[in-house]
Amino acid sequence: MQIAVLLYDRFTSLDAIGPYELLGRAPGAETVFVAREAGPVRGDQGSLAIVADRSLDEVPAPDVVLVPGGPGSRAAMRDERVLDWLRVADTHTTWTTSVCTGSHLLAAAGLLKGRRATTHWLTFDELVPHGAEPTRERVVVDGKYVTAAGVSAGIDMALQLLGRIGGDELAQTVQLLTEYDPQPPYDAGSPEKAPAHVVARLRAEREGMYEA
Amino acid sequence: MQIAVLLYDRFTSLDAIGPYELLGRAPGAETVFVAREAGPVRGDQGSLAIVADRSLDEVPAPDVVLVPGGPGSRAAMRDERVLDWLRVADTHTTWTTSVCTGSHLLAAAGLLKGRRATTHWLTFDELVPHGAEPTRERVVVDGKYVTAAGVSAGIDMALQLLGRIGGDELAQTVQLLTEYDPQPPYDAGSPEKAPAHVVARLRAEREGMYEA
Repeated sequence: MQIAVLLYDRFTSLDAIGPYELLGRAPGAETVFVAREAGPVRGDQGSLAIVADRSLDEVPAPDVVLVPGGPGSRAAMRDERVLDWLRVADTHTTWTTSVCTGSHLLAAAGLLKGRRATTHWLTFDELVPHGAEPTRERVVVDGKYVTAAGVSAGIDMALQLLGRIGGDELAQTVQLLTEYDPQPPYDAGSPEKAPAHVVARLRAEREGMYEA
Repeated sequence: MQIAVLLYDRFTSLDAIGPYELLGRAPGAETVFVAREAGPVRGDQGSLAIVADRSLDEVPAPDVVLVPGGPGSRAAMRDERVLDWLRVADTHTTWTTSVCTGSHLLAAAGLLKGRRATTHWLTFDELVPHGAEPTRERVVVDGKYVTAAGVSAGIDMALQLLGRIGGDELAQTVQLLTEYDPQPPYDAGSPEKAPAHVVARLRAEREGMYEA
């Protein structure tokens, strides 16, 4: 099972690494980080670079595609080479997946037309022009298309996928190995739960954060 | 606030990236990935390399040190250059932190003598020879030393630290931005909760997983 994790400038690191950490532990999994060109790709905070070991051309037929989100997703959505790769790779995949605004790339490639999908809570309206049906769930499964909400939701998505790929015991084993027994000290992880003024401030700042 | 994330061969990627993703969003934070030598450092699954932008010598006085765990931690614990760097860096830090078996490096450097600390649930006994007091909590704070349990626990640690560094509202803002509202589809994230035969199998496999 070849898992291709797409990287592009200004991706959000946890979007990619959360699900990678868990999915990569499936028996027989081979993960490959891919980008337009092989080499280091820098994330949205500027201080982290992950190495893409392969260019897009070198990974034409993965079994699983994982597209992270990030402020750079808007630029990547306009990159026809990236969109073409997604379209062709998707004809081979068992699962085509995204975290956060990564679903906008899948949508821009035309893969989510008429499908239920999710994204970061701040960017729901951006799924509509591409024909996807925005769905406010943490992980949305529609056929082989699996989209996760913002950033950390990719970890929950990975556990769901592990269960479907290898059964409950595989998922439970990986959950135990990664000690995923979350105990957040605050309860502010969704706009319904966070203090209203924090939600309002982030909505106001949104354009600055997600501009290309 | 300079945050130094230590990398070494066969580190576990989510140990480093989980807390990096959240802590790096603190106002004024500058994160730097460091290793023995600058350049790509490959994680425990073999398929991921993160670039260390600086060598240890170039980052002598960080404000926060973050040490991830991983199968390579046993080798790193015997690397006097790494341990010396930890000892000197620690004289400058406001917070000295670890995730998973990263605490074994702090312990080997002599920094956890007589202190409460945690680690991956499979490796508790390994803290004892270095004088630490193993403590089964998800995040343990003892003075400026903050240790997290296995892999995903670093995310909870980061939220605690953000609260202490910048106040509750900062932590809540970052939790909302990263949409950290965990909904794991299984409840197997600790040895108390996972099916007994899964726990038993991992205990049996432990030596293979954590050997250097």
